[in-house]
Amino acid sequence: MRTHFCGLIDEAMIGQTVTLCGWTDVARNLGGLCFIDLRDHEGIVQVLVEPDQAEVFAVAASLGYEDVLQVEGVVRARHSVNDKIKTGKVEILASRITILNKAAPLPFHAHENAGEETRLKYRYLDLRRPEMQRMQRTRIQLVQSLRRWLDARGFQDIETPILTKATPEGARDFLVPARMHPGEFYALPQSPQLFKQILMVAGFDRYYQIARCFRDEALRADRQLEFTQLDMEFAFVRERDVQDTVEGMIRTIFKEVMEVDLADPFPRLTWAEAMRRYGSDKPDLRIDLELVDVAELVTNSEFKVFTDAAANPDGRVAALRVPKGAALSRKQIDDYAAHAAKYGAKGLAYIKRGDNGEVTSPIAKFFAEDAFAALMQAVGLENGDLVFFGAGDYKVVSDFMGALRLKVGKDNGLVQDAWKPLWVTDFPMFEWDAEAQRYVALHHPFTAPAVDDIDDLRAHAKTAVSRGYDMVLNGNEIGGGSIRIHRPEMQSAVFELLGIGAEEAEAKFGFLLDALKYGAPPHGGIAFGIDRIAALMAGTESIRDVIPFPKTTTAQCLMTGAPSPIPDAQLAEVHIQVRPKKQD
Amino acid sequence: MRTHFCGLIDEAMIGQTVTLCGWTDVARNLGGLCFIDLRDHEGIVQVLVEPDQAEVFAVAASLGYEDVLQVEGVVRARHSVNDKIKTGKVEILASRITILNKAAPLPFHAHENAGEETRLKYRYLDLRRPEMQRMQRTRIQLVQSLRRWLDARGFQDIETPILTKATPEGARDFLVPARMHPGEFYALPQSPQLFKQILMVAGFDRYYQIARCFRDEALRADRQLEFTQLDMEFAFVRERDVQDTVEGMIRTIFKEVMEVDLADPFPRLTWAEAMRRYGSDKPDLRIDLELVDVAELVTNSEFKVFTDAAANPDGRVAALRVPKGAALSRKQIDDYAAHAAKYGAKGLAYIKRGDNGEVTSPIAKFFAEDAFAALMQAVGLENGDLVFFGAGDYKVVSDFMGALRLKVGKDNGLVQDAWKPLWVTDFPMFEWDAEAQRYVALHHPFTAPAVDDIDDLRAHAKTAVSRGYDMVLNGNEIGGGSIRIHRPEMQSAVFELLGIGAEEAEAKFGFLLDALKYGAPPHGGIAFGIDRIAALMAGTESIRDVIPFPKTTTAQCLMTGAPSPIPDAQLAEVHIQVRPKKQD
Repeated sequence: MRTHFCGLIDEAMIGQTVTLCGWTDVARNLGGLCFIDLRDHEGIVQVLVEPDQAEVFAVAASLGYEDVLQVEGVVRARHSVNDKIKTGKVEILASRITILNKAAPLPFHAHENAGEETRLKYRYLDLRRPEMQRMQRTRIQLVQSLRRWLDARGFQDIETPILTKATPEGARDFLVPARMHPGEFYALPQSPQLFKQILMVAGFDRYYQIARCFRDEALRADRQLEFTQLDMEFAFVRERDVQDTVEGMIRTIFKEVMEVDLADPFPRLTWAEAMRRYGSDKPDLRIDLELVDVAELVTNSEFKVFTDAAANPDGRVAALRVPKGAALSRKQIDDYAAHAAKYGAKGLAYIKRGDNGEVTSPIAKFFAEDAFAALMQAVGLENGDLVFFGAGDYKVVSDFMGALRLKVGKDNGLVQDAWKPLWVTDFPMFEWDAEAQRYVALHHPFTAPAVDDIDDLRAHAKTAVSRGYDMVLNGNEIGGGSIRIHRPEMQSAVFELLGIGAEEAEAKFGFLLDALKYGAPPHGGIAFGIDRIAALMAGTESIRDVIPFPKTTTAQCLMTGAPSPIPDAQLAEVHIQVRPKKQD
Repeated sequence: MRTHFCGLIDEAMIGQTVTLCGWTDVARNLGGLCFIDLRDHEGIVQVLVEPDQAEVFAVAASLGYEDVLQVEGVVRARHSVNDKIKTGKVEILASRITILNKAAPLPFHAHENAGEETRLKYRYLDLRRPEMQRMQRTRIQLVQSLRRWLDARGFQDIETPILTKATPEGARDFLVPARMHPGEFYALPQSPQLFKQILMVAGFDRYYQIARCFRDEALRADRQLEFTQLDMEFAFVRERDVQDTVEGMIRTIFKEVMEVDLADPFPRLTWAEAMRRYGSDKPDLRIDLELVDVAELVTNSEFKVFTDAAANPDGRVAALRVPKGAALSRKQIDDYAAHAAKYGAKGLAYIKRGDNGEVTSPIAKFFAEDAFAALMQAVGLENGDLVFFGAGDYKVVSDFMGALRLKVGKDNGLVQDAWKPLWVTDFPMFEWDAEAQRYVALHHPFTAPAVDDIDDLRAHAKTAVSRGYDMVLNGNEIGGGSIRIHRPEMQSAVFELLGIGAEEAEAKFGFLLDALKYGAPPHGGIAFGIDRIAALMAGTESIRDVIPFPKTTTAQCLMTGAPSPIPDAQLAEVHIQVRPKKQD
């Protein structure tokens, strides 16, 4: 139906007769001439209709936004060059225009910035905008680049089931009633974790999949019910084999898609060091600020909040210097305290030091003069600066001081325009869930502990370190993985420590325990969040921009109207019914 | 953990020290030497342990099937060359063997042919078999080859949702209760059909996706609850644009994966011709037999079955010659009749002509001598042949004579060892569903009719031809597609003809009708069944062999135990309950 794409017409084609197809981006009647900006996926070209072509002119004069056209004409040089578009030096002198499909008046025009609800309802109109096309293309290029890299290295792209078995973190499972098995359900996978481990046991050696995963949790700005990950698994490997390989992969795709050179090698931090220096297990290294531990310098003060935390083996007293922070108003300081409070802070002490060296601090009175001077020196407080202090439980202080660090960085223009990847390693094996009174796995229950000895693990569960690792980029965890447990006894022991009894383990993971029994190789892997990486590359905060048909934060597709009620007769066929509403 | 792969050790490496990892395929103690066949995904290599290496020898002597090992040793030439394996000219003289994981006694050994239930339960053991590895790799190569071809041609790989809206053919939908919307459900897509059309409206021009699709129907040998298709859509195209493009693609992948040259161009048959000559809309052209219509030659007979069918405008009298069929026994002829009966035949007349020219036929008595001779000549009956006749409703006769043709071909060694692709085009637009007393779409409700005029379509719905097309290979429909309706009025008219009222259409497809309204380009596409193509390439009858984790015909995963019961409390969270069993 066409000989060329609109956006690719250029000066080399002057004199040629071409047939183009596309949308009427805009049509104007100016000084007795009709100008049509004809748009396709490659871009826009100007079509000119002269009045002596009466029939064609009549068609052109009738056009509205987004009418779909087929245009035949001759390429010629343009009188007034338009530098804003690729085809700005040429135009098409039309000899024939066919309206392939007339467009009704639009609910919103591509050029305006409609509300998100409208944009999602008419997603196909929103996706026509060049900015949205660009972001989708970034994602497409990212996935292409990844596959090219993986295929060239012998990774095998293997599909795993979407209809599978409910898992122990079952509360987040999507359930699918089974027609042939009344009262039974499939579940959609939260990840292909177990299947990829099984594939290693089955001898596939190096596996990957761009896999759809499902998690039924309340939607936050950066979460969707379904999301996409690059899932990888390797047999016969140790941590560095996996890390070095995928680090090279990520460097390659950033080079190919973004023309960016990432650090080589990536910096590495243990989890403990990341928490200590940045108050985060996914530190944003674009911000050149670090937390400073000052417990030792406050033990002789009379400020009970500090001395209590300093005396507590699970406590922390940490400082964050805000360069030029002396300029902060009382209100701004209060806002920072409020922000820290959201992450668990009960209060935020500070020392301000004016440009003239004058010190203002609500806590100065609790310190001897030389101790206070030592404290100021330890945190690097210079004239014009301010320093915040947090004290309390180690984890809580780290969390809110880490959050404070990010906000201070963003508010004060301290975020470098750069790509800062790193590895975080040596995660704790378990986290104590005080509510449930049991350990939970920090990565997942299949992550190997650093120790090989089961008794050793049992004896030191609280401080045990895992063989898990995360890849972090600009403050986002973009990849997470681990070396897995490959011995059935160790897997059983870890289940036990996690409060999963032998019977429950057998019911839920019997097939994994069996598989480990029949010759499982040492193996490990990683999964990367494609939506997040694509959003980072596309330069958008929201992953919704790089998902063609996203759901809202209320889990709806505004375009199709999913979810929707289903006739009871159809529910009967799969042996379920809607539960009556609770009376209370 | 290793320096090389077992299956890739060769003579060029003689003298080198290598570290290998793999499985104990077999370990034998022969004449005071230990031989281990060490296996990885690349193949097997022989490891030799000499008794003077006492410690290593002790380990080697203790090995059982499938123990996972790390072996260090020197590559050397093998005394007795084994031509059956790639590494047959070399062996590894072991200096160290580490058991990485001991394997328990196996439920079945890889070398034996266990029952399918056992193989599916221990799928990871079954997948270790070289034959299964080969079939999975064929699938992997197929998909890789397709992607390479598509990416090089500017097709954009775009993901569409898995959690979406229930469709009109809703009985086959898998339902997923929505936590945030009590009483509402998502559905898993039977295909990305609507989304890919929406993508064309959104201006993506050329789309593809290796897409997971879901259909909740009783499982037959060649169906799974979830299956994979290569889904494609093109904007601004006519039939031949799509067909010629994907025909080239299929030729390329057969060349790359199978080293096979498919016909160029593919033969083309209209649906009517395919039914007439082969009694099938997916004829297997490897069988060089055709149906012959003989209604005109039987009108003067006294065989009422024939004359009735010949007189009926919707009737058919068709013949199928069986070369050398005179040798068929009475029992064999009865078996063919029984086979035809399964496809609707009420009986099967025949004429047999012995090697000596003697004719035997239960219907000869109904014909005048010259009419009978003319009939025999028309069907090409030679000495030693037999010819079957079917008479009755056109569609029924075509179906059972088509099925008979396949069986005759297979039973008599008439299936060529060849790849025979073709296009089938010009399908009927509608099929009359006598039970529901309404038309149903032969392809799907979005397929464009060959006529552009709505009144014309309404007036001749029964005989209307669609713009659908199928790609057929060796009797399998491997791809199906169409030019779609792009005008909203035509789409509404087709919905109406299919008995989908305006209100229902709005509720179910309102977003599509809207999208067509706001500037939809002419577009069309196709979808290919990846599982079926992979099975054909791998040379297996069952698609289960090319799906890593398939379900059984009773819709179960024997490995994981899906589907499974779910605690009522968890069902309550998604606002459903299991329906009480009917009392009757």
